[in-house]
Amino acid sequence: MSVRLLSSEDVSENAQMSDVVPAVREAFAAYERGTAQMPPKSYVDLERYNGDFRAMPAYLDAGEWDAAGIKWVNVHPDNGEKHDLPTVMGTMIYSDPETALPLAIMDGTELTMKRTGAAAAVATDELAVEDATSLGIVGAGIQSYTQVEAIAEVRPIREIVVSDLDESRVRAFADHFDDRFAVREGDVGDAASCDVLSTVTPVRDPIVELDDIGDHTHVNAMGADAAGKQELADDVLLEATLVIDDHAQTTHSGEINVPYSTGVLTDEDIHAALGEIVVGTKAGRAGDDGITVFDSTGLAIQDVATARIAYQSATENGSGTTFDLLGVADSHAER
Amino acid sequence: MSVRLLSSEDVSENAQMSDVVPAVREAFAAYERGTAQMPPKSYVDLERYNGDFRAMPAYLDAGEWDAAGIKWVNVHPDNGEKHDLPTVMGTMIYSDPETALPLAIMDGTELTMKRTGAAAAVATDELAVEDATSLGIVGAGIQSYTQVEAIAEVRPIREIVVSDLDESRVRAFADHFDDRFAVREGDVGDAASCDVLSTVTPVRDPIVELDDIGDHTHVNAMGADAAGKQELADDVLLEATLVIDDHAQTTHSGEINVPYSTGVLTDEDIHAALGEIVVGTKAGRAGDDGITVFDSTGLAIQDVATARIAYQSATENGSGTTFDLLGVADSHAER
Repeated sequence: MSVRLLSSEDVSENAQMSDVVPAVREAFAAYERGTAQMPPKSYVDLERYNGDFRAMPAYLDAGEWDAAGIKWVNVHPDNGEKHDLPTVMGTMIYSDPETALPLAIMDGTELTMKRTGAAAAVATDELAVEDATSLGIVGAGIQSYTQVEAIAEVRPIREIVVSDLDESRVRAFADHFDDRFAVREGDVGDAASCDVLSTVTPVRDPIVELDDIGDHTHVNAMGADAAGKQELADDVLLEATLVIDDHAQTTHSGEINVPYSTGVLTDEDIHAALGEIVVGTKAGRAGDDGITVFDSTGLAIQDVATARIAYQSATENGSGTTFDLLGVADSHAER
Repeated sequence: MSVRLLSSEDVSENAQMSDVVPAVREAFAAYERGTAQMPPKSYVDLERYNGDFRAMPAYLDAGEWDAAGIKWVNVHPDNGEKHDLPTVMGTMIYSDPETALPLAIMDGTELTMKRTGAAAAVATDELAVEDATSLGIVGAGIQSYTQVEAIAEVRPIREIVVSDLDESRVRAFADHFDDRFAVREGDVGDAASCDVLSTVTPVRDPIVELDDIGDHTHVNAMGADAAGKQELADDVLLEATLVIDDHAQTTHSGEINVPYSTGVLTDEDIHAALGEIVVGTKAGRAGDDGITVFDSTGLAIQDVATARIAYQSATENGSGTTFDLLGVADSHAER
């Protein structure tokens, strides 16, 4: 049978945010309802190369649809300097859960950016003020672009304030978005006083202080992905209505991992998991005032939900190419 | 960059047993020396479809070479009846450990058969009598073919006795091999009195009794891959010099899982792990007499070692096809 192969460009074109955001929302709901399966990430450490691989398998049953697959992703911090390659890459196998046939194999790097943006959008939809029109971005790297694309799906964003120490990244960001939004450069405080803020940096010393943040700002803390990383000062996390994606992952390597490990922040300080808010067992934003924070680590269920969107659209559009991997009859390939 | 795509046929042609057996031998040695990493298999259970997925990531450093990757494999017992598809399929991502670039994506089904045969050959090389010329096969399904191919690499096999309740499988097996070996049909006892025996069945009630087995027969017990399965009677396992591939896997789902779980068989009854014999810390066959048993569950390190052989040969031969999955420069693709 034929498996559909989707390049980064194919994923980019076919995983449209208007479809990905609701799919990721349903993934969080399924996870909360217990109809998703997501074993802990398996790590393969490569000390010799200063890197690691992570296996992220998942299945989710959203009721109307289900999806399964695995993302094989790495973190190789020396890749840029030594090999002119990205630090993080990924490959996704998207499988039919009924037969286990691999339906698609796709670039997981682009997929990760899409699903990460989508998680921020789901959180923003639940936690930002309704009429949020301004979006702050701290850290204008590649992951920031899907923050904008996704959040603009759920709120009427008109103005973007971008903050980054690297001027070339600010210019590239502004060039990319200035035909659709009023983009201006600002410092961290300018960005953090917007209605919505997304922080997308790899820092280990927090760069956003409580004083920086607006009275009703919703913050998506996207950057922390390893023990020791933290973007928001402790008092921001303690003051805010704090929402996480997954307790095990975030206490291990998410935004709260440092204050949690030292006991400065405890389970008492966590308001809810995002899935609890999506399904309605916990409240989202309570009023017009107050800071909310979403601590995103990135879940394998987001990947399979997004892969399904990419696969379905690509099949309709004839995107990518097909390859007879398993040598079984083609009639089994479509579902 | 381009990833090389290898179909089942490409894997079959390029993963030659003469290369795969020594590579799998080195994988067992690396595992024993502690230069391999193999996180426990992650399971995704699909109750709704009576099946599961398993993620098998691994890295191994064999000294002269290293290899990394992940096999995503399934067990769907209803696939044959409902979908005319194999119960077990797999897809392998073979990655460069230094940069994490995916070098090849290949059919994992054929790969599994090859590496499983190779493990039996490594065990046979250490545990069978030197002049083993006869090979018994109990269970003439697809996995039995690579048993013959691999074991014939390490011993001067001339005669094969094949036992299977399904006459058509016996005929197909004989047709396939009778130009290279003297193949005859026999009962379990005929097969089990050969110098080497490989059992390749999915049974839950043992089908090989102690009386069936020759005085110096080496048995490769390949079939058990789930809790409750067992091919050899308890007294065979207790009487034989018993060698396992991995303690955690075999006590969970290997040949010894049933008697181990009930305490009939204990760690005292296990002579060695195969890796210990390969590196020389435990002895292999002690003399011309005595039954030896290798309990094989199949390790992820076997997959990455075999994938490397397939990838290297395919690259030399220009087999398969290439696809620009990640959209990074092609100069990074070869290693």
